[in-house]
Amino acid sequence: MKNIKLTIEYDGTEYCGWQRQQNGLSIQQVIEEGLERITGDQITITGSGRTDSGVHARGQVANFFTNASIPAERFSYALNSVLPRDIRIVDSEEVSPDFHARYSAKGKRYRYAILLNPHGTAIGHRYYYHIRQSLDVDKMAQACRDLIGTYDFKAFQAYGSSVKTTERTIYTAEFDTKMPYVNFIIEGNGFLYNMVRIIVGTLIEIGAGKKEPEDMKKIILSKDRNFAGPTAPPQGLFLDKVFY
Amino acid sequence: MKNIKLTIEYDGTEYCGWQRQQNGLSIQQVIEEGLERITGDQITITGSGRTDSGVHARGQVANFFTNASIPAERFSYALNSVLPRDIRIVDSEEVSPDFHARYSAKGKRYRYAILLNPHGTAIGHRYYYHIRQSLDVDKMAQACRDLIGTYDFKAFQAYGSSVKTTERTIYTAEFDTKMPYVNFIIEGNGFLYNMVRIIVGTLIEIGAGKKEPEDMKKIILSKDRNFAGPTAPPQGLFLDKVFY
Repeated sequence: MKNIKLTIEYDGTEYCGWQRQQNGLSIQQVIEEGLERITGDQITITGSGRTDSGVHARGQVANFFTNASIPAERFSYALNSVLPRDIRIVDSEEVSPDFHARYSAKGKRYRYAILLNPHGTAIGHRYYYHIRQSLDVDKMAQACRDLIGTYDFKAFQAYGSSVKTTERTIYTAEFDTKMPYVNFIIEGNGFLYNMVRIIVGTLIEIGAGKKEPEDMKKIILSKDRNFAGPTAPPQGLFLDKVFY
Repeated sequence: MKNIKLTIEYDGTEYCGWQRQQNGLSIQQVIEEGLERITGDQITITGSGRTDSGVHARGQVANFFTNASIPAERFSYALNSVLPRDIRIVDSEEVSPDFHARYSAKGKRYRYAILLNPHGTAIGHRYYYHIRQSLDVDKMAQACRDLIGTYDFKAFQAYGSSVKTTERTIYTAEFDTKMPYVNFIIEGNGFLYNMVRIIVGTLIEIGAGKKEPEDMKKIILSKDRNFAGPTAPPQGLFLDKVFY
């Protein structure tokens, strides 16, 4: 059995998210059906983690085991020939048998795109969160520096989640602003459910003057979801890279 | 009655094109219904010209007459509040009563985006024509220079079209290549039906070595659609600007 690692790009707009669900078409299901078409086998793929409905990826990673005779590096070509245009396998390679897309992951990088202008844009409307009001991006950049480090990020976890520990380490949190686009980039060893979107929602409240940059530290230390901002919508979020 | 000029951006993927049709939702219809919602009046808008199903615009222009009390420059805000995210009014202004979006137009600029890479991209898959094979962009750039000037472009008109004259003047025809994206930009005083897409289909055949750069001039002079290349697909085409 070969262990194949896939690097996957997708436009999440028309899917119920990464993970297979009863009600709705997931990216995992579409790729698994593609694998069945090209290999004849029912194959389950393991992703690095879930992404929600409407969230995009430039570098999601998944792996699967197969006896198929297709060379590892040809799986991308074979799959892309049967996959829809909004899911692309950008790389496929054979990895060691103990590689596990989720458990082997050392970290992830996400990007969140905000468009600040009066009218939005029609071209690319699936790929940003549109905000009409102006935001103080300097204050947002100041606040996001307090995210860097190892903390209990429970305040930035969606209600009703259950994980063993809500401690995570953030390595990078910064803005890449090319007005009218404000891009937030965050890297960490792992992320709680909805964590990036709640951080972005909090940063937007800081940029809008509803909260102060100094509040970020207080919110982290509160460990209370009530103190953080709203969950920013999914269409601005991209899973850019998984680190191994 | 005020004469209002709209500058319109749209993602044409989910529409049957600019112009109202019996079977299918057009961009014109969606904007006219938006105008009825905000003014209470049934208003017909005049576009600078048609765009086909799947073709996009960054700078389509339309005008309409109204007695509504909404200030001209507020129409963009009012319309955008009721329009879907894939149609945006980027500007609205009052113009002289004799301004006519179609008859006053002095020229247009189109852009056609080709993506040259093995797998395409999922993000932005609505906005380019994906070609796997490599193309000789230098040869394409050489050939497109022969388009500049005043010619009978009948060879680049879709079969079955009827217009008074097929003579048009092309001012600019050039490539803006940022690999893996190859963008073709063309400006002229007017374009025949499917003209840009047939020119692009011909240039792609030249880039792929099926035709020579010198063939462009011969195809123009032939005035025969049979000698030109296929019609490139709509999703790569953008109406960038209408000149008045």
